[in-house]
Amino acid sequence: MIPNILAERYASSEMRDIWSPSGKVRYERELWIAVLKAQDELGLSVSPGAIEAYEKVIDQIDLESIRKREAESRHDVKARIEEFCGLAGFEEIHRGMTSRDLTENVEQLQVARSLEVVQKKTAATLAQIAAKAEEFVGQVFPGRTHNVPAQPTTFGKRLAMYGEELLHAAQTFSRIAASYPVRGIKGAVGTQLDLKTLFSDEKVKVDQLEASVLKHLGFSKSLHAVGQVYPRSLDHEVIAGLVGIASGPSNLARSLRLMAGHETASEGFAPGQTGSSAMPHKMNSRSCERVNGFLVLLRGYETMAAGLAGDQWHEGDVSCSVVRRVALPDAFFSIDGLFETFLTVLGQMEVYPAVIARENAAYFPFLSSTTLLMEAVRTGTGRETAHKAIKKHAISTVKDLRSGEITQNNFAERLGADSDFPLDTADIEKVITGAADLIGLAKEQVGDFSTQVNEFLRPLNPEWKDYRPGQIL
Amino acid sequence: MIPNILAERYASSEMRDIWSPSGKVRYERELWIAVLKAQDELGLSVSPGAIEAYEKVIDQIDLESIRKREAESRHDVKARIEEFCGLAGFEEIHRGMTSRDLTENVEQLQVARSLEVVQKKTAATLAQIAAKAEEFVGQVFPGRTHNVPAQPTTFGKRLAMYGEELLHAAQTFSRIAASYPVRGIKGAVGTQLDLKTLFSDEKVKVDQLEASVLKHLGFSKSLHAVGQVYPRSLDHEVIAGLVGIASGPSNLARSLRLMAGHETASEGFAPGQTGSSAMPHKMNSRSCERVNGFLVLLRGYETMAAGLAGDQWHEGDVSCSVVRRVALPDAFFSIDGLFETFLTVLGQMEVYPAVIARENAAYFPFLSSTTLLMEAVRTGTGRETAHKAIKKHAISTVKDLRSGEITQNNFAERLGADSDFPLDTADIEKVITGAADLIGLAKEQVGDFSTQVNEFLRPLNPEWKDYRPGQIL
Amino acid sequence: MIPNILAERYASSEMRDIWSPSGKVRYERELWIAVLKAQDELGLSVSPGAIEAYEKVIDQIDLESIRKREAESRHDVKARIEEFCGLAGFEEIHRGMTSRDLTENVEQLQVARSLEVVQKKTAATLAQIAAKAEEFVGQVFPGRTHNVPAQPTTFGKRLAMYGEELLHAAQTFSRIAASYPVRGIKGAVGTQLDLKTLFSDEKVKVDQLEASVLKHLGFSKSLHAVGQVYPRSLDHEVIAGLVGIASGPSNLARSLRLMAGHETASEGFAPGQTGSSAMPHKMNSRSCERVNGFLVLLRGYETMAAGLAGDQWHEGDVSCSVVRRVALPDAFFSIDGLFETFLTVLGQMEVYPAVIARENAAYFPFLSSTTLLMEAVRTGTGRETAHKAIKKHAISTVKDLRSGEITQNNFAERLGADSDFPLDTADIEKVITGAADLIGLAKEQVGDFSTQVNEFLRPLNPEWKDYRPGQIL
Amino acid sequence: MIPNILAERYASSEMRDIWSPSGKVRYERELWIAVLKAQDELGLSVSPGAIEAYEKVIDQIDLESIRKREAESRHDVKARIEEFCGLAGFEEIHRGMTSRDLTENVEQLQVARSLEVVQKKTAATLAQIAAKAEEFVGQVFPGRTHNVPAQPTTFGKRLAMYGEELLHAAQTFSRIAASYPVRGIKGAVGTQLDLKTLFSDEKVKVDQLEASVLKHLGFSKSLHAVGQVYPRSLDHEVIAGLVGIASGPSNLARSLRLMAGHETASEGFAPGQTGSSAMPHKMNSRSCERVNGFLVLLRGYETMAAGLAGDQWHEGDVSCSVVRRVALPDAFFSIDGLFETFLTVLGQMEVYPAVIARENAAYFPFLSSTTLLMEAVRTGTGRETAHKAIKKHAISTVKDLRSGEITQNNFAERLGADSDFPLDTADIEKVITGAADLIGLAKEQVGDFSTQVNEFLRPLNPEWKDYRPGQIL
Repeated sequence: MIPNILAERYASSEMRDIWSPSGKVRYERELWIAVLKAQDELGLSVSPGAIEAYEKVIDQIDLESIRKREAESRHDVKARIEEFCGLAGFEEIHRGMTSRDLTENVEQLQVARSLEVVQKKTAATLAQIAAKAEEFVGQVFPGRTHNVPAQPTTFGKRLAMYGEELLHAAQTFSRIAASYPVRGIKGAVGTQLDLKTLFSDEKVKVDQLEASVLKHLGFSKSLHAVGQVYPRSLDHEVIAGLVGIASGPSNLARSLRLMAGHETASEGFAPGQTGSSAMPHKMNSRSCERVNGFLVLLRGYETMAAGLAGDQWHEGDVSCSVVRRVALPDAFFSIDGLFETFLTVLGQMEVYPAVIARENAAYFPFLSSTTLLMEAVRTGTGRETAHKAIKKHAISTVKDLRSGEITQNNFAERLGADSDFPLDTADIEKVITGAADLIGLAKEQVGDFSTQVNEFLRPLNPEWKDYRPGQIL
Repeated sequence: MIPNILAERYASSEMRDIWSPSGKVRYERELWIAVLKAQDELGLSVSPGAIEAYEKVIDQIDLESIRKREAESRHDVKARIEEFCGLAGFEEIHRGMTSRDLTENVEQLQVARSLEVVQKKTAATLAQIAAKAEEFVGQVFPGRTHNVPAQPTTFGKRLAMYGEELLHAAQTFSRIAASYPVRGIKGAVGTQLDLKTLFSDEKVKVDQLEASVLKHLGFSKSLHAVGQVYPRSLDHEVIAGLVGIASGPSNLARSLRLMAGHETASEGFAPGQTGSSAMPHKMNSRSCERVNGFLVLLRGYETMAAGLAGDQWHEGDVSCSVVRRVALPDAFFSIDGLFETFLTVLGQMEVYPAVIARENAAYFPFLSSTTLLMEAVRTGTGRETAHKAIKKHAISTVKDLRSGEITQNNFAERLGADSDFPLDTADIEKVITGAADLIGLAKEQVGDFSTQVNEFLRPLNPEWKDYRPGQIL
Repeated sequence: MIPNILAERYASSEMRDIWSPSGKVRYERELWIAVLKAQDELGLSVSPGAIEAYEKVIDQIDLESIRKREAESRHDVKARIEEFCGLAGFEEIHRGMTSRDLTENVEQLQVARSLEVVQKKTAATLAQIAAKAEEFVGQVFPGRTHNVPAQPTTFGKRLAMYGEELLHAAQTFSRIAASYPVRGIKGAVGTQLDLKTLFSDEKVKVDQLEASVLKHLGFSKSLHAVGQVYPRSLDHEVIAGLVGIASGPSNLARSLRLMAGHETASEGFAPGQTGSSAMPHKMNSRSCERVNGFLVLLRGYETMAAGLAGDQWHEGDVSCSVVRRVALPDAFFSIDGLFETFLTVLGQMEVYPAVIARENAAYFPFLSSTTLLMEAVRTGTGRETAHKAIKKHAISTVKDLRSGEITQNNFAERLGADSDFPLDTADIEKVITGAADLIGLAKEQVGDFSTQVNEFLRPLNPEWKDYRPGQIL
Repeated sequence: MIPNILAERYASSEMRDIWSPSGKVRYERELWIAVLKAQDELGLSVSPGAIEAYEKVIDQIDLESIRKREAESRHDVKARIEEFCGLAGFEEIHRGMTSRDLTENVEQLQVARSLEVVQKKTAATLAQIAAKAEEFVGQVFPGRTHNVPAQPTTFGKRLAMYGEELLHAAQTFSRIAASYPVRGIKGAVGTQLDLKTLFSDEKVKVDQLEASVLKHLGFSKSLHAVGQVYPRSLDHEVIAGLVGIASGPSNLARSLRLMAGHETASEGFAPGQTGSSAMPHKMNSRSCERVNGFLVLLRGYETMAAGLAGDQWHEGDVSCSVVRRVALPDAFFSIDGLFETFLTVLGQMEVYPAVIARENAAYFPFLSSTTLLMEAVRTGTGRETAHKAIKKHAISTVKDLRSGEITQNNFAERLGADSDFPLDTADIEKVITGAADLIGLAKEQVGDFSTQVNEFLRPLNPEWKDYRPGQIL
């Protein structure tokens, strides 16, 4: 059998369980029993012992037996009804229901359970980023725009930057999850005809059954005027939310890949793991690269989901079926794999302060030019004169560095030696050294980010933030 | 000059104004003045009369003059600063700001204003769909699955189905709009260095300036730990929200296209317009087709936005620039054109009850088979016997209709004449006529939908729901 | 284990074999042996009996054993080398090769073999469409634009229309397949350093080895200046080609779904299968819907592949790995499932001439108006007068049909009774009946299409066109 | 008016002309005249002087006048017919044609002319890359995998790598362009009814007219069995081809962005331009970033085009209209902007050998370890012993470099001082210096690439390869 590579190679067992063939059978059985119980409570005749009999065999899931039944009847839902009834010795489930009353709700249940897993791992990731941002809040280095040093910042602030992006996406995602509506038991074209008939036109009982089933499934909201299928724009909303969630981690992973190229940081190694003996310098960012790969997958699943949104014909059909069988589980496996990988990176990543110090030495002279100008003007030198001197020596320093004339940035010496410029080399070097302080409110921003993360985490399950990833390949 | 076809051919002037070159210049000037005022209030020296001077010339927008300045300086922001200063006779704006402090915030302002236009038109659309759903709540016809009659429903319920989809998307979109965070004045790499320096390290003043600018822009929330650019996943979130918003209207438009093929309904004509004289039967669904086209565009812009999300290098660069210059305005022009078109359709669409009646006559006999079976069993006939008779005559009726043996569905006659079936033709026809009542809770669902729409609309600007589209091509 | 649903539920065993874990292992072993043989021929020392020993065990594929080796060494390629060497009792393979020399070429081999399967099924599909187009070349009905009758055409011509679209895509695809270049054995960064060293700087031998390996793999072309990985735009080219291939069948399937709504045609049933007994009229287009679904999937895989194209860093990395592990096999499973489904539809589809005749009766009066005008003018009546009469009665006929005043199109009677119009009802009806001849060159076009298909098929494997699909679910 | 930003800011005037409103009017007039001439030659009565009269006014294009006519008639094609006839003083054009006979063919003409512009600029780009690859064929530096030094290569070879990717895409694109089929004059539903009638059923004359029009348009192939519209998968094929074309340049641009971060290379400056005076070290890769941005746009347009492929209903409608009005021109403007930008980069880019030399000094010691091992073994030292020594000192060197213990790679000294290792420091340094020779067949590959480019360019217009970009912003 060809395995689902995303499930088997990258996703956690928790996510696999939700989307496994046997997991789905179990959700179906839960739904059937919930409906049966509600029908019993609402006065429909249910044979004594039937509910208990179904409950007893709920975990006896024999996919091969179901497969054989389907091969015979050529009807998948019927095969699963017969299997469950055969095990229980009753024929009471699925009354007043059509196939889609079963499958739509169960698929939405799978989505809803997956949403919770994603929320858990998002919480853990936010907590970890906040911790790392605080750990490196003082690690000053040149912030880069256009991939080139621009102004000092700190590694902690950079982490907080990506963390804040994830935090925003997490808040959006929480709202998507909280307002996710289930289709409910609505019949062949959504008019609730069969349930209405079953309950002899008593609308109130139809409503009560719906409420009861919702409660079982753990949904707070159902659709009212739905057709045979729930609107596929819901699938799009969820997968678009996953793209949002994936963006911050992907950005951070990309930055680590870039920094690894400079040896200022790396994604680190698993405990016990070392680099290739022949090439110990190689910090291959395999996991970060993989995180970026997962986002590319998610964009593709979003395209699929967007392709279904707005393409419903009347009350529905199965043109979406094969798409959703693939895109929904695979999108969740992708985000799950992304989190397993990214949490591993967060746990192992390394920063190399000595290499950063060399970067700072190379670039802070240039990043200090604005301050040098201010200081020069403060001594009474004309702004134009000072600016001209700075420009002249900055450009010639760069030129000599690139041509190999010099190998160390000696801008301070050059500028200090220029009689047009009022500060001497020592003073200039003091300013340059002080560039490490030119990080604005970077530290306070990290603090703000931490506070926000804590506020976000507070109402959530406290175990979530401590989730740790499994072993990754 | 090559026009932006989406803006010029499909979008409303309201949306065009937001994204027009001169509109953008005006937003920039508003931002500069807001910053200047805040700086003045916070004690920075601002020349007397400067603010007033800038305010006085805010609407003197000469794009050609700006273009010339840019051609000279080769720096677009500088050109616009000089133009504004030239007009005002002061050089006080843009202090403590970098280019991105201007452009990022102004672009977000354009987005935010566009979000409001979308919300307005969504409100109007929901109100219109609810009105139409109530108007046609009793128009019974065969609901279709797989594009084939399945069970009776009503046209009102079908409208409510798509309306409820839009309502959900509208709620999601409202939350996106309400929590949309602005970047704020954060400096070259996001550390707020320049403002901190400007305010001599008084963080509280930096915060006050930020708060003041936010208030001006109408934002409730800003990002704290942002880099040079705000996270591009925000753009994706917004455009994904537009895809969600477009889905319900697109589904309704697609159903109208399908129904036009059966002549049961059409998108109608503009007042005074008639069909082609040669082909008066042709109800070309040009506008509905266009609505579907806009969704295809939006999916493409979503792909673009998703392609930027998670692809930030360090504190940012301009690899996103050309993409955002296109995808943001064009996505908003698309949704705007969609609403202008779709609201026109809602205002003009027609239903043809006589044609529907012929559909009902053709299909209700088959859609009544379950009820006929129940009635037969009630008379004491065996279920198996009754079912066999129904099946036999149903299949032969279909066969004869398709082969041309008969041209009208005479299932009632055939079945009534069968001695194995207890009901006579008159009784059977009564059941079939009664199929029009087999619409379950369709009417109640329409009522629920209307109620929900009203609840959604209540807190909104009351004028929104009455918005009417402009003339479309 | 969670299965790959596309592989297990929809794809053929032929395609599954190519992408199965054991299939891949076999391809790897073929490559190793081919390299070994080439090295032997080129004078590198290879132990006597080694090649034979490897060949003997090539089919002894024990995935579990390989899995255990990988769990230990944590290196997948190493594990498979050790397994193969363990079985053969030699350690000679993989000399002068890096991991990517193995994996890149083997993945391209999987692609190339899949391309051939796609070409085979495309050929079969073209042959089937051409046969159906000829079968129905004379089945006249109203061609539709905007989903509304516009001018007569024939069902055969409509089939040829979609067939010609597929033919063009098939020609493009053939060229893609024929020019698909393989990476070859190029070493860690693509410079062929290891092979050059192995062959003591004899470039000619490096070239000979490459040529020999190409021959083995069945490729006609290799890349020369490639890096560690082959350009990912190649994957995009292939998957974009699949989207092209899927378009014609998807269009035809969509038309069948639309026609099923009118009962003019259907996708038919499998032999022995009947409609639901309760609803015998329901010709659910499940397979056609599925065909449309596969295209939605392919568009998503194309987005993934496009996301990798142009995103290579230097000589390569594994950011594409997880994407390609999913998108390549799943895209091929999708197109394979599409063909299996679509070929089934082509074999079973039905047309209902009697229903079509009713459509013709309803619409041909309107579709004849141009001819009626010409005939009227020919009798000497003024063009304006005749046109006015036609318009008047056409519009009122449509109005009465839609309002229920009449149930049959009686335009001929009305117009014939109008003294302003020169032709009488009988003459008018003759014209209308003659509308069936107003199909222009539809028949000749079908003939042209058939001829083109035959020309396309001629140089291909003659068995391809006779391929028949397996049993679908 | 809101301009099309892609056209006005990035594209060349050559591409703008093709897609400008007046350009389109001109193409239409050319088509009309061509049809009229063909009709004349085939014996249809054409008024004496008519053709000359139309030809005389072909360039009198007054968009405002056309706009007014359309506002009145509410029919765009009619307005343009009337305008042209009004100017010429005849009413002879458009005979036997429907609107789509005009618009489909003209749009395809725009596509075809754009394909040629793309081919021209691709040729120029290939020639430039080949020239640069040869210029830098000997510039050795560490090839990088996972963004980390892996094995020596040369900058020329890296350029050839991306160039070869473009070459492959260019070959594919040439075949797409060469086989691009035009719809032709096929009538309302594609049956050629009107022309057949016009030519009194003489099929041979219909064919001759088609052939004549094709010749005029410059197409070699037309579709035979087409409907009202040509298959939209053709648009997808073209845009997917553009994504392919964009991939190689995008990869090269991305590498330059990465290299700019290390200051080993940059996209350079326009003549006369210098870096910011405050930050002379900043080589902002604005143009390379823009190139990457264009690819993101193209992927989005591909999603749009893929969304239309396979979504045709019967003989066609206008659901594709708004999509194609946007995606086709904007995709061509994007690729055109990409080439203008990329050719500018190729003309200005700089390499910094002194910086590269420092990179080499830092990494070649590690990249030489395999050779050092071989040399050690050659002296009789055991492989294990030698390997152990190398590993020990490599790892400790890396560790000390990252921790700041040392600032220069002193691996050679350490290893030379180790008595377990047979080579002394001088010998080791010789090996390391020799690493610059470990570039395998990099030079030969560059030569192969150049040869292939020349072969590709030979049959093309010789001026194409010398095309130089306009001034970019």
